[in-house]
Amino acid sequence: MTPTTRPTTWLDVAAEHPFGIDTLPYGVFSTADDPVRRVGVRIGDLVLDAGAVAAVGRDAGLVGDGPDLATAWQTPSLNAFLALGRPAWTTARQWLTEVLGQEVHRDGVSPHLHRLEEVTLHLPVEVADYVDFYASEDHATNVGQIFRPDNAALPPNWKHLPIGYHGRSGTVVVSGTDVVRPSGQRKGPNDPAPVFGPSIRLDIEAELGYVVGGATELGTRVSVDEAPDHLFGVVVLNDWSARDIQAWEYVPLGPFLGKSFATSVSAWVTPLEALASARVPLPGQSDPEVLPYLRGDAFGLDVHVEVSIDGTVVSRPEHAGMYWSPAQMLAHLTVNGASLRDGDLFGSGTISGPTRDTRGSLLELTWNGTEPLTLQDGTTRGFLEDGDTVTITAWAPGPGDARIGLGEVVGTIRPSA
Amino acid sequence: MTPTTRPTTWLDVAAEHPFGIDTLPYGVFSTADDPVRRVGVRIGDLVLDAGAVAAVGRDAGLVGDGPDLATAWQTPSLNAFLALGRPAWTTARQWLTEVLGQEVHRDGVSPHLHRLEEVTLHLPVEVADYVDFYASEDHATNVGQIFRPDNAALPPNWKHLPIGYHGRSGTVVVSGTDVVRPSGQRKGPNDPAPVFGPSIRLDIEAELGYVVGGATELGTRVSVDEAPDHLFGVVVLNDWSARDIQAWEYVPLGPFLGKSFATSVSAWVTPLEALASARVPLPGQSDPEVLPYLRGDAFGLDVHVEVSIDGTVVSRPEHAGMYWSPAQMLAHLTVNGASLRDGDLFGSGTISGPTRDTRGSLLELTWNGTEPLTLQDGTTRGFLEDGDTVTITAWAPGPGDARIGLGEVVGTIRPSA
Repeated sequence: MTPTTRPTTWLDVAAEHPFGIDTLPYGVFSTADDPVRRVGVRIGDLVLDAGAVAAVGRDAGLVGDGPDLATAWQTPSLNAFLALGRPAWTTARQWLTEVLGQEVHRDGVSPHLHRLEEVTLHLPVEVADYVDFYASEDHATNVGQIFRPDNAALPPNWKHLPIGYHGRSGTVVVSGTDVVRPSGQRKGPNDPAPVFGPSIRLDIEAELGYVVGGATELGTRVSVDEAPDHLFGVVVLNDWSARDIQAWEYVPLGPFLGKSFATSVSAWVTPLEALASARVPLPGQSDPEVLPYLRGDAFGLDVHVEVSIDGTVVSRPEHAGMYWSPAQMLAHLTVNGASLRDGDLFGSGTISGPTRDTRGSLLELTWNGTEPLTLQDGTTRGFLEDGDTVTITAWAPGPGDARIGLGEVVGTIRPSA
Repeated sequence: MTPTTRPTTWLDVAAEHPFGIDTLPYGVFSTADDPVRRVGVRIGDLVLDAGAVAAVGRDAGLVGDGPDLATAWQTPSLNAFLALGRPAWTTARQWLTEVLGQEVHRDGVSPHLHRLEEVTLHLPVEVADYVDFYASEDHATNVGQIFRPDNAALPPNWKHLPIGYHGRSGTVVVSGTDVVRPSGQRKGPNDPAPVFGPSIRLDIEAELGYVVGGATELGTRVSVDEAPDHLFGVVVLNDWSARDIQAWEYVPLGPFLGKSFATSVSAWVTPLEALASARVPLPGQSDPEVLPYLRGDAFGLDVHVEVSIDGTVVSRPEHAGMYWSPAQMLAHLTVNGASLRDGDLFGSGTISGPTRDTRGSLLELTWNGTEPLTLQDGTTRGFLEDGDTVTITAWAPGPGDARIGLGEVVGTIRPSA
């Protein structure tokens, strides 16, 4: 059961493949032959029916006395697995590394591998509460300058706490789901009254999302150091945003309909353990120093993000530059005693860097539409047009030369209904 | 199956009882003998095991070809019943009115009635998404004056759209649940830096909450006129609020930890049909006129609310004065294509009237603590103290002289953990 320090696999997966034995993300899939949704693990361009293999192992007495992974994985979301908590997640990854790594398991495992192009991927998590943070200093500064030009770009609370708000968990959708252009009210600063219609400033926000497990009781807190016991893994997340709707509605209670029409996440959830080699120090929180409850091993993550529209790469944000870390966000979220549920999801907020080509939203990339982007086909974009397909991919360094793929989140804009 | 216009009951329930045959709210209960949570219907001071009676009726062929209420009710939340939609809700109420109304059913029903004091009541709904609105003009004006004294009291968007935001559905708790005083950051306007500690401005917000059923698809809308097909019923709701935490955190993305530690709801959900006699016109939306998607049969509800602290009535807010109606809130919530799930819950926002004794929060009642209230025992309150018990009750006019009880939401403050 103990993996070697640098695991190998009996599968034919190129060393440079972003979904090698060091990655092993979890998702939920079905097949034409078996439409029942169940947990899958990606390796290379294959999907392992993890519950089926675990059931064989369990029935043969191979999985031992640990958590019943077969039962947890033979369900239509990751939530049952998330409920098992950190020790079970570690056991599961060790077991998967062994069955996919040691030649002796080839015959037992092979029948339970499906080709990626032959499976349908589903929303991996039944999202409980969804929170979105605002953790990039460059993003918050840019948005402040654009939305609130008469105020200081960064709100006075920004460096004291990771600002966040609750979003709509019922409209979190899996990568590949089309996004219908939302309608709503908008009002320019010089318009006498709001008008109603399809959004004309439809945008993206390139983020990472953190999937939570190991539910907690109401009235308790999770410290920064305890956070990894509840941070199961990471998705790539697109927080679709209708800037015109948002600008008119958001004072004083925050974004609502400008965000709630859809939030897309990657089909694969990358376990936190796969990102061990991507841990980096935070860029700095010395001025001001943060309050004690936000201190501890608040690691950053060196994840490289790429945003493209209709095949043209428009930005390469760097997650390592984020001011606040996921462990700090989780500590903040629970410091008032709010409980966590299995399947909670929180977003990092838009990942933006100091240069134009590292900005994670069109709002920033085109400076609210005033500096349009030119795509490969020669057309320009201030905001998204109907038919546009947005793809956000991400990867992180793994052990040695390995690259850890975080998958992709894709969505195409459909006209307003 | 057709109830008389003014139903009666064979049960010994006083005509003036707020839970007479005209009320019939739904909840979830268990008993010492049978700890399985299931749907109950309150009549007088009794709780009907609705699923058990429906199962008898089904097995005897009495319930006919309609929805399978027995199956929906023999579950640990109202969500399965909410999923059946408006026609089934109407059928169910007709059937309950008949079995509790016609003497012939006495022998069949009586074994399935439990005394209220012998049951345990649970959270009636597995809350999907929770949204809180801000629909009282007096409340919004008061809060604006207190929180944003340098700006116009009412934000410019306020009369154009029902402002709302998402809250934390995982911390919605049933009446009777203790509330642990939350900790967090606070910073007065003249403090050099934020400090951390238990909230010193812990408050209530007296609201009604609307329980949603008849889930919709992503990308579709619910109009004002269609809203009653998705508005299953009403709860009394206390949106506990830590004003010091909220004031420091809420710009620019809205309330977060100042609200997310607990939201309490009554154990009983009053069906919308029970409030037919409480429908009233809205107080007025002519200046400005609202956009077309917010027009229609946007009825108000004449619900009387009473707030007490440790037995002293401190306020009697009137829901009939709310500027925005629940049907408008639901139309607004979905106008961007956001889907509804069974178990969605949205709050009205604090119900406040124009006079001090009709304000629904301590923030307003004591004007941010500067004008303390005096309780019956002679002690004063700016905000809540540890050990305080807050009770919010509500009732509405029913047919004839009947009074429709909306139950109560109670919570006691426990010291910070």
